[in-house]
Amino acid sequence: MAEPLKVGLAGVGTVGTAVIRLLAEGRDKLAARGGRPIEVVAVSARSRGKRRNIDLKKFRWVADPVALARDPSIDVLVEVIGGAGDPAKRAVETALAAGKPVVTANKALLARHGHRLAMLAERHRAVLDFEAAVAGGIPIVKTLREGLNGNSFTRIYGILNGTCNYILSRMEEGRLTFEECLRDAQRLGYAEADPTFDVEGHDTAQKLAILASLAFGTKVDPDAVYVEGISSITPADLDAADELGYRIKLLGVAVRTEAGIEQRVHPTMVPKETAIAQVMGVTNAVTVDADGLAPITLVGPGAGGTATASAVVSDLADIARGVRAPPFGHPAARMTTIRKAPMQRHEGGYYIRLLARDRPGSAATIARRLAQQRISLESIMQRHEVRTAPRASRSGNTGDPVPVILITYATSEDAVRKALAAVRRDRVISGRPQVIRIEKN
Amino acid sequence: MAEPLKVGLAGVGTVGTAVIRLLAEGRDKLAARGGRPIEVVAVSARSRGKRRNIDLKKFRWVADPVALARDPSIDVLVEVIGGAGDPAKRAVETALAAGKPVVTANKALLARHGHRLAMLAERHRAVLDFEAAVAGGIPIVKTLREGLNGNSFTRIYGILNGTCNYILSRMEEGRLTFEECLRDAQRLGYAEADPTFDVEGHDTAQKLAILASLAFGTKVDPDAVYVEGISSITPADLDAADELGYRIKLLGVAVRTEAGIEQRVHPTMVPKETAIAQVMGVTNAVTVDADGLAPITLVGPGAGGTATASAVVSDLADIARGVRAPPFGHPAARMTTIRKAPMQRHEGGYYIRLLARDRPGSAATIARRLAQQRISLESIMQRHEVRTAPRASRSGNTGDPVPVILITYATSEDAVRKALAAVRRDRVISGRPQVIRIEKN
Repeated sequence: MAEPLKVGLAGVGTVGTAVIRLLAEGRDKLAARGGRPIEVVAVSARSRGKRRNIDLKKFRWVADPVALARDPSIDVLVEVIGGAGDPAKRAVETALAAGKPVVTANKALLARHGHRLAMLAERHRAVLDFEAAVAGGIPIVKTLREGLNGNSFTRIYGILNGTCNYILSRMEEGRLTFEECLRDAQRLGYAEADPTFDVEGHDTAQKLAILASLAFGTKVDPDAVYVEGISSITPADLDAADELGYRIKLLGVAVRTEAGIEQRVHPTMVPKETAIAQVMGVTNAVTVDADGLAPITLVGPGAGGTATASAVVSDLADIARGVRAPPFGHPAARMTTIRKAPMQRHEGGYYIRLLARDRPGSAATIARRLAQQRISLESIMQRHEVRTAPRASRSGNTGDPVPVILITYATSEDAVRKALAAVRRDRVISGRPQVIRIEKN
Repeated sequence: MAEPLKVGLAGVGTVGTAVIRLLAEGRDKLAARGGRPIEVVAVSARSRGKRRNIDLKKFRWVADPVALARDPSIDVLVEVIGGAGDPAKRAVETALAAGKPVVTANKALLARHGHRLAMLAERHRAVLDFEAAVAGGIPIVKTLREGLNGNSFTRIYGILNGTCNYILSRMEEGRLTFEECLRDAQRLGYAEADPTFDVEGHDTAQKLAILASLAFGTKVDPDAVYVEGISSITPADLDAADELGYRIKLLGVAVRTEAGIEQRVHPTMVPKETAIAQVMGVTNAVTVDADGLAPITLVGPGAGGTATASAVVSDLADIARGVRAPPFGHPAARMTTIRKAPMQRHEGGYYIRLLARDRPGSAATIARRLAQQRISLESIMQRHEVRTAPRASRSGNTGDPVPVILITYATSEDAVRKALAAVRRDRVISGRPQVIRIEKN
């Protein structure tokens, strides 16, 4: 049996402790499959004294993760500290510059500095693996990097944030509001005390930027992602979606268009019968479309200590076996700057929910504004909501705004925005229109 | 740029021509990602003159695939001839014995001779890759071999035959019989003129045996698989499944039990809300359960020239990059002979549909026989079928047998078989009972 692969572990939180546990439990199997054992030899974390359900005494303690990265006694650095800045960044850079392989679960770091780190890794012939950074338990990074090598990807999209998917699933099943479900998620530990990063779509955007880079060979650029979160979604939207044969999911979508690569994160109507629509709760899923191939969907746990750690361990097993691939599948020097397709040029169907003022001419005005932008409608739903105490007016109208739901045929984002701005200027609607994009398969 | 990887292609049917096309279309990308170009240099097929929608003139023609395998001018053999026997077998053996990597799509060969070929490959330090052999477009082989390395698998199951899934989906959607849907499938080219191998579950069994070997580190053994096909499934079963919240799928299931590894292929009731139940038409899907992890499901195209060829090409890309893993993930010499869990010891819920003779005491007899085997019932559905011309009898009974549907709590295969044998001996039912196993997630 060959020399063990000696691991330095930077970060001993939920994921770090699960990595230690999985390596111990899988010791013999990993050694047999990888041709050499994998052993944690040294660890680093912010607080040495913190209570953990694991005994750290048998590992060497290195207070500074950067010193750990530099330590000649470790063969590979596992970085599960998190965050785009130091010390995670400097620890990873230090290891790579020393030609040492790095396994990281740090999506923020990769989204922000992915291309520079890939350049550094390749210059020093070091491996940089990050299966755990996107959709934890789903082997999507490896699948894009190595598993579907022969194909030309056209689109990749997915449910990449378990918190949002839990909230939307719960809203749909329980006919509850966003706020009620967010509180549930917080109580269950699925959402942070400050949920902004998750529910406003930023977490999804970071992961999407990484996936787009793997799929299209472009430099990671989280700033090229258009982002909308789920906090504006109401039970009325979920009811309407249900009636129309859709579910609402927060999707990250990256698609190759004539205008460039379109990257967007927003609540999305997906047909109920698609694989992605069936994914409920904290589960994640990614669908890949390639030229001439039926779509491939991977569904599995997106987060959690064990799922994330299991991805870290499979990267370590690859390193033990000597597998090496460019970090983003394509040689870093040949990755192109992303040509960003502006969101205004996005084309697709739209769900629009408006509150039309209940007075003569409102409907005609709305119809005219849409027609001016050449938007055709696939369906119109209008209903007077049930009121507990109806007020009758002379014309038989209640005077209250009437919810109107429009489904458009494929049109452009620009046309929709212009039409709705005109409708608002015309003062025929009350409040802001709700707009949800439709993604067909 | 390094020397090209020179491919000898044995078999130039649908898959072979698609491999040539994908390698040509993806030339630059594959060279960039793999560090060297991949080029077909020689081909072999049964008939040189056959009309193909591709020009073979630019490739050297080697009439005998075994001679092609031996040819020193090729670096890797792609075998897409098919069949467990020669010439496929001898061509693969010849290449491996010469230390040459082999990529094959041949499930029959691997199911029958997988372990011996893996031994041969490892003895000669040759790579043996076969992503295309199971669920064509889904990277399940790589996922089991490399992508989920850290885990201990407990169960793997899937929809591995597009023909059967097409037929069952169509029966359900159109309320049609097996025979009607089989004819549809044949017309559409989804089923062979002789459909036995597909519809009786043998194709699924071969693929399952390969997956079980990858998941559990046991020697491939297709004879250890219990097999039942879908030809006995009726619209009445699909209706009952629908009412009870299930769909019927032909699943291949391999599960680690205390008695050993249970491998079985049979029509299965799966809860409607599971990922696998949503898979309709010719699509394939595989779900993997590992200790302490939520299940991972991969969904995608199972067959077709492009999907299969794309799997072949990603294996070639791995070889170009120098990736090597034991063929079945585990070193061949350490793979164990499968300890087969006998089907009689299978435990789970059962759907049983019987035609009870409409006479006093039938129900009591059936109930007694089940109780004798300690089988508890979760539900009982009994309905008199609507008849166009009802015949009344003195007792108000029609005299015709009455369909009764029983859903059992978890019990054993043995108990179910014994109870039903007793019920048949008691002559209280008419015809053979229908038995469908239930698979929970």
